Amino acid sequence: MDRTEALARLPDRICFLGLGLIGGSIALALRAAGSTARLVAWTPSLAGPEEALRAGAIDEVAVVPDAAIADAGLVILAGPPLDVVALLAAGTDAGPWASLAPDAVVTDVASTKARVVDAAAVSGLPFVGGHPMAGRETSGFAAATADLFVDRPWVIVAGAVAPDGAADLVEALAVAVGARPVRMAAEAHDQAVAAISHLPLVAAAALVEAVSSDPSSWAAAGPLAASGWRDMTRLARGDVAMGAGILDTNRLAVADQLRAFRAAIDAWIVALESGADAEVLRERLASARDALDGSSAQRRAREA
Amino acid sequence: MDRTEALARLPDRICFLGLGLIGGSIALALRAAGSTARLVAWTPSLAGPEEALRAGAIDEVAVVPDAAIADAGLVILAGPPLDVVALLAAGTDAGPWASLAPDAVVTDVASTKARVVDAAAVSGLPFVGGHPMAGRETSGFAAATADLFVDRPWVIVAGAVAPDGAADLVEALAVAVGARPVRMAAEAHDQAVAAISHLPLVAAAALVEAVSSDPSSWAAAGPLAASGWRDMTRLARGDVAMGAGILDTNRLAVADQLRAFRAAIDAWIVALESGADAEVLRERLASARDALDGSSAQRRAREA
Repeated sequence: MDRTEALARLPDRICFLGLGLIGGSIALALRAAGSTARLVAWTPSLAGPEEALRAGAIDEVAVVPDAAIADAGLVILAGPPLDVVALLAAGTDAGPWASLAPDAVVTDVASTKARVVDAAAVSGLPFVGGHPMAGRETSGFAAATADLFVDRPWVIVAGAVAPDGAADLVEALAVAVGARPVRMAAEAHDQAVAAISHLPLVAAAALVEAVSSDPSSWAAAGPLAASGWRDMTRLARGDVAMGAGILDTNRLAVADQLRAFRAAIDAWIVALESGADAEVLRERLASARDALDGSSAQRRAREA
Repeated sequence: MDRTEALARLPDRICFLGLGLIGGSIALALRAAGSTARLVAWTPSLAGPEEALRAGAIDEVAVVPDAAIADAGLVILAGPPLDVVALLAAGTDAGPWASLAPDAVVTDVASTKARVVDAAAVSGLPFVGGHPMAGRETSGFAAATADLFVDRPWVIVAGAVAPDGAADLVEALAVAVGARPVRMAAEAHDQAVAAISHLPLVAAAALVEAVSSDPSSWAAAGPLAASGWRDMTRLARGDVAMGAGILDTNRLAVADQLRAFRAAIDAWIVALESGADAEVLRERLASARDALDGSSAQRRAREA
């Protein structure tokens, strides 16, 4: 399926509940790709959708979620993870989902999948989970860009209750915005992102906590900080409500990764304090670099 | 002292022992600023100096360090930290330092200062330590740029044996390449960089070690890695011999920082596993972000 085919598969009306960095970037990417679908968005404050309407990124602002959902062929939940879980848990008998069209498909872009897929299963919604592996440390519609997903993986997780072709429709959305769909189980996804996304987030926050805990040494050290410090703490500058929601919905997988990380840190403390030879330190750094290079080489090979 | 005054204070002949990213960037910055000093460089392989000579960044390649040092008014040790310590420990009676001019000043750009200053004191060299707080993950003369030091702090550490005005000369070098000199004691410097530079290096390596330790989960997670992972592991892609030398010469300060870091990680594990409310997680992330913002605000205020 190429991008043109993918665009043609999308329904005439696409609804966004949540329209920040990710939702906004999907809307912009659909527009840039020439999609003729009518894009309608709702968020609790309406600020993002109103900004997007002024920018020509969407066609319509809905003042209540029901109005956004009604008649949409595809509903994209693009709010913070805990809001997504809460919306899905609202159930289909009453509330916003009562207006869902019979053949509509619901998807999301939240950073964790097991809790979201479970909530959708309990509600009986026609749901397929999604997670575009792209981001920036800035948030909100103002940070959205049409090329955010280009060549990035977009994880697609089958839901318990979904009509035939629902996963294909979400895959078409991913391809339409330039991403590469990757089908995974929810648990495998959550373990993988605990490693390469949530552990780094906690590590960045913990770095700041460790270094800033002594105000006088922080006052001396902070002004010397260079690009290495800036890169290592960038994730700690992100949206804290989003970060807390991500960690809250992936607690045990993140804790497992933190235990492995702590073991690695402990081994470094031993190596430094025991007076291990500089060659031992060099070999550990070289092994880590080789693991990274191997991963990059693998990825390049896969993409070639 | 402005940049023009600083350039005028520099001696007619400046010698580099080591000419990679930092030494090369000093040479390029002096050239770009219009310095008329004769720049001469030696490294063990001569590769960097020969490349720099072809690029017009230096005037002369010395085939032995003695020839580079002879007649230089300023000698800049710009090799890896362990090589700098070894060179300084060679003593002044014989070897390369026997050719040092009577009024010359020796400085360095190594990332740790106590071991370097001690080695210079033992040798009785007219030494003032330096550490430009700038870097990139790439290394070698090919990575050098004339603007690497612009507006960056350049730490200056007094040596035990240095003629009057020696620290002023090194300060002039810093200003001449666009940096902001900051005078500090060696121990205060080493503690500060353990926090904002060496702890992040070990954390980056430990992240890779933790995540890549299980090959099957690494194979699943690696391809999903996005910009957060890339930023958090960039330091682990750097020059491993340089990294090992840095850690080897600042062991206890780095181990202290790692212990504080581990305590922060432990607290995160407890918060996640004990089922602490999402609001507690959000508050911790918010505190870390506030500490970062406070530091940025302080720096902006200081620079204004």
